[in-house]
Amino acid sequence: MFLQIVFLLSFLLSTSHATVQDFCVADLKSADGPAGYPCVAPAKVTSDDFVFAGLSEAANVTNIINAAVSPAFVGQFPGVNGLDLSAARLDLGPAGVIPLHTHPGANELLIVTQGHILAGFVSSSNVVYQKLLKRGELMVFPQGLLHFQIASHKRKALAFAVFSSANPGLQILDFALFASNFSTPLIAQTTFLDPDLVKKLKSVLGGSG
Amino acid sequence: MFLQIVFLLSFLLSTSHATVQDFCVADLKSADGPAGYPCVAPAKVTSDDFVFAGLSEAANVTNIINAAVSPAFVGQFPGVNGLDLSAARLDLGPAGVIPLHTHPGANELLIVTQGHILAGFVSSSNVVYQKLLKRGELMVFPQGLLHFQIASHKRKALAFAVFSSANPGLQILDFALFASNFSTPLIAQTTFLDPDLVKKLKSVLGGSG
Amino acid sequence: MFLQIVFLLSFLLSTSHATVQDFCVADLKSADGPAGYPCVAPAKVTSDDFVFAGLSEAANVTNIINAAVSPAFVGQFPGVNGLDLSAARLDLGPAGVIPLHTHPGANELLIVTQGHILAGFVSSSNVVYQKLLKRGELMVFPQGLLHFQIASHKRKALAFAVFSSANPGLQILDFALFASNFSTPLIAQTTFLDPDLVKKLKSVLGGSG
Amino acid sequence: MFLQIVFLLSFLLSTSHATVQDFCVADLKSADGPAGYPCVAPAKVTSDDFVFAGLSEAANVTNIINAAVSPAFVGQFPGVNGLDLSAARLDLGPAGVIPLHTHPGANELLIVTQGHILAGFVSSSNVVYQKLLKRGELMVFPQGLLHFQIASHKRKALAFAVFSSANPGLQILDFALFASNFSTPLIAQTTFLDPDLVKKLKSVLGGSG
Amino acid sequence: MFLQIVFLLSFLLSTSHATVQDFCVADLKSADGPAGYPCVAPAKVTSDDFVFAGLSEAANVTNIINAAVSPAFVGQFPGVNGLDLSAARLDLGPAGVIPLHTHPGANELLIVTQGHILAGFVSSSNVVYQKLLKRGELMVFPQGLLHFQIASHKRKALAFAVFSSANPGLQILDFALFASNFSTPLIAQTTFLDPDLVKKLKSVLGGSG
Amino acid sequence: MFLQIVFLLSFLLSTSHATVQDFCVADLKSADGPAGYPCVAPAKVTSDDFVFAGLSEAANVTNIINAAVSPAFVGQFPGVNGLDLSAARLDLGPAGVIPLHTHPGANELLIVTQGHILAGFVSSSNVVYQKLLKRGELMVFPQGLLHFQIASHKRKALAFAVFSSANPGLQILDFALFASNFSTPLIAQTTFLDPDLVKKLKSVLGGSG
Repeated sequence: MFLQIVFLLSFLLSTSHATVQDFCVADLKSADGPAGYPCVAPAKVTSDDFVFAGLSEAANVTNIINAAVSPAFVGQFPGVNGLDLSAARLDLGPAGVIPLHTHPGANELLIVTQGHILAGFVSSSNVVYQKLLKRGELMVFPQGLLHFQIASHKRKALAFAVFSSANPGLQILDFALFASNFSTPLIAQTTFLDPDLVKKLKSVLGGSG
Repeated sequence: MFLQIVFLLSFLLSTSHATVQDFCVADLKSADGPAGYPCVAPAKVTSDDFVFAGLSEAANVTNIINAAVSPAFVGQFPGVNGLDLSAARLDLGPAGVIPLHTHPGANELLIVTQGHILAGFVSSSNVVYQKLLKRGELMVFPQGLLHFQIASHKRKALAFAVFSSANPGLQILDFALFASNFSTPLIAQTTFLDPDLVKKLKSVLGGSG
Repeated sequence: MFLQIVFLLSFLLSTSHATVQDFCVADLKSADGPAGYPCVAPAKVTSDDFVFAGLSEAANVTNIINAAVSPAFVGQFPGVNGLDLSAARLDLGPAGVIPLHTHPGANELLIVTQGHILAGFVSSSNVVYQKLLKRGELMVFPQGLLHFQIASHKRKALAFAVFSSANPGLQILDFALFASNFSTPLIAQTTFLDPDLVKKLKSVLGGSG
Repeated sequence: MFLQIVFLLSFLLSTSHATVQDFCVADLKSADGPAGYPCVAPAKVTSDDFVFAGLSEAANVTNIINAAVSPAFVGQFPGVNGLDLSAARLDLGPAGVIPLHTHPGANELLIVTQGHILAGFVSSSNVVYQKLLKRGELMVFPQGLLHFQIASHKRKALAFAVFSSANPGLQILDFALFASNFSTPLIAQTTFLDPDLVKKLKSVLGGSG
Repeated sequence: MFLQIVFLLSFLLSTSHATVQDFCVADLKSADGPAGYPCVAPAKVTSDDFVFAGLSEAANVTNIINAAVSPAFVGQFPGVNGLDLSAARLDLGPAGVIPLHTHPGANELLIVTQGHILAGFVSSSNVVYQKLLKRGELMVFPQGLLHFQIASHKRKALAFAVFSSANPGLQILDFALFASNFSTPLIAQTTFLDPDLVKKLKSVLGGSG
Repeated sequence: MFLQIVFLLSFLLSTSHATVQDFCVADLKSADGPAGYPCVAPAKVTSDDFVFAGLSEAANVTNIINAAVSPAFVGQFPGVNGLDLSAARLDLGPAGVIPLHTHPGANELLIVTQGHILAGFVSSSNVVYQKLLKRGELMVFPQGLLHFQIASHKRKALAFAVFSSANPGLQILDFALFASNFSTPLIAQTTFLDPDLVKKLKSVLGGSG
């Protein structure tokens, strides 16, 4: 009798198997679309596709900002494709700074796991919301708004940022302006910054135009 | 004069024709993505693509549960691709049972078309909502919650379930536990069921691990 | 020991209880919004809120179209609020006709449960897709496209339509034109129908303007 | 020191570069899907992909409706793919008419930039909302509802319609009925129009069936 | 006989009337939610609710940027609530500048209706896409990315921007930095701008902190 | 001259201020709806609304499962309302177990910040995907699928789970079955578990029915 259920349900399951889309691990070799990447065939998916170890080590922060951001977006972690989630690791040395930036395509939730981080964002109404976050505290940054994170002077900090998209994007203000091909006269016209200052910052950050 | 309108509008329509996406019949030979399958070229679509006859016959219910579920998800009925709708037929013999299950990817609306069906679901707050449904009555089951359907003892029943996704998924509790490769010690640890019971049920339902 | 788990988890559950939103039964006395109605407080929700019996009886079809449509949209069935699903019952006498209409806000899936129904829709490319449907057959009608259902001449028919929205809307072509306050000259200008014909149809269907 | 930041961040940016999806210019040669077309590789995208000049010239309106609609949907303007926006240009000669039509897949916002336009739509409740619009005025038309635009008798008019989808669709009522393969008896049955009238209009507009 | 259809369908329509949600004109006196404002009762809605005349006049551009932006977001134009569309009018005198800004909550499509406008945006990959737009040309700006518009030196320009949200937001870079309560040391730390420069710009633009 | 810009833009900003919806902090005293809670008036929002400190301390795990889950859903953290994100803290003592459960309304991304955790989920195809996760490793669990987390025997573990919804829900299998009002005969019928076993587990976990 129990064998019957096995036959019945294995039939049911085999017919539905072909199209079950519990998940959609990204096939990064194919072109993506507005909703993400095509799925790897379920039969080829393994446990490893749902796991990402690339954020387990501290990044090198011996650089000018004394900080590093390591992404686990769909490009690095194909298992998040279609799940409306992704993550990044923020390593900050003492007084390390994640410069002012936006995520054009996602909201962010920050989880501080070590040290103290001063974090804040600027609203469309030009109000700054900021707070000194301690270990275990969370803060949210709504989509598309300028925000920053700074470690306290005394010791290093570690945090994980998670996003409401598998591909949140990242526009760092200084790089958009001074590490891009944005023409100096246009920057000056649209920001009121002095062209000489723009040129100086471009020479440092590698911008052209 | 009327010829002009024909020329004008046939021009308009031909230019827009290429990209009109009133519908997107699934090309099941291509890989799917987070939003569904790529579309068959509209010129190859016929009326038959929008119709599904696979649920018109009663399924065989001479099995242990005295019931059968026949899906019309996107894998069986490519015309539902992108329409956020799909269906299934539930055949139940007298006292037939659709075992406890969830649809991870969709809400469900059940339409009883023959007989009496006792149906219910368990909420996140551990409250059971259940009702004896008669012919022509509807019941909804919110996404992802455990639910069941049982025919009355006296006579067979028929119902159609419709879903808010072209690919709602189906996780049958007993099969997830006892017809899968879920390891017996892990099942015992995470459900408080006795390992011996787990082994026994696995031997019946075909589970490994 | 087991008591501890009860305490622990009842604590967890009670804290999360307040905000769990497995479902959102519509509070029809409050104003709706773009996503639907505010939710009835979960504590006041009962099994009956998830069940709708209003479609269990055949509607009277002794009228000019020999047919009737009975909706189970959110206004009639508050339990579908937020679930992206709703339904309607179609009763058709022999040769009964559901006149040409659209659902501006939802895709439709039709399930024929009795008799034969000729159903069809017109695409944006002016192609008609139609089929004679038998009992148990399904057909889909993409959002916003003109479509119709006609029972065979020989016997009555019954079908359930389900929609991808709790509030799909219903625009019956003849009523939009001839039972509304649409001015006769404007109808004539925008449809190429003769004003005298428009006036005649308005006199029958009750239109003004 | 500043070189370090360049190295660090160029590393960060190069790793994320592969998967940044700020935009998704349509690859019209590939099959589309429910969410739109696959994206052209970002490296091949240029400024021209985000610009569309096809609406800059007035269309010829020497035709029966004394009007023309020129679309900038994703098929014409691949840059709108995935952006939930598209546009169309409406040229109307004096007394020009855009016949009654719907957009099955999008809401519309009309911007009048020249002349006067009488515009209106019919709701699901058979109420007509209409207004004589002057230059610079806006009007919205909710998704899937029948609507029209008519220029004043005295002078020509120009407007831009924008849509909440890259592919809004366009179903012109007269063409759905009289320029399609919709069978005359079925039209008569589902609209209450006289078969002889239907045949006459089909002969003018090119319908078959 | 025709009276019957009137009775039947007026019954149908009256029952569905209560919940038809073709549109949801914002009740701005109520609190908004994640999907927008509650709806004004349909019976109180008139044609005027779907029309906005507030962009029909040129704004005064005798100011430092020789330009003005006039919004028709849901706050100004309640009829767009829930329609995923809104608009703004851009008036630019000769060489007028809309400073670098983002819309955190929407994609933008710009329609130039008079004059020449140089428009551009910076991608997450720090590439600037820009183009000199002429009358009747369109350009898109993906959500959340920094962009600008500048009129040609010789003559004034006019454009309409439309957005994929009823409430797109607007973050003007200079104002976020120098007209807000963003502390000078934090701006300096997160942008690499000199504190003295920041203070100077704040004194002009009214910033505190 | 610079004063002019202040006047101009303060005008612009004040007009748009009323309706800017960068964020929508939940007003938990009002009824929620399908998209979340109504927003607190922006003027009453402070930095604290975007921060949550309730997960900063370890929970007490001296209980039967040697573990605890602490939610930061919208009910606890109103700032996540409308952001499609929320979080939970998982404290596990040595060999601590988060029992088999689902989140009916969200995908999950787990970040292990201390210790080793064996985590896994069961797909609709009855395949178990599991992995031993180390500190800094991530794993995703698609919406609605049964999953579990178990700390290694040797030492305690800590993890943060984040969700793709402000209100993901939580259905713990044992509690749905044995701590609810789910009738024993119905459980037995729909799970194939022995009624005596069901009664025994109910007596421990507090179930009725």
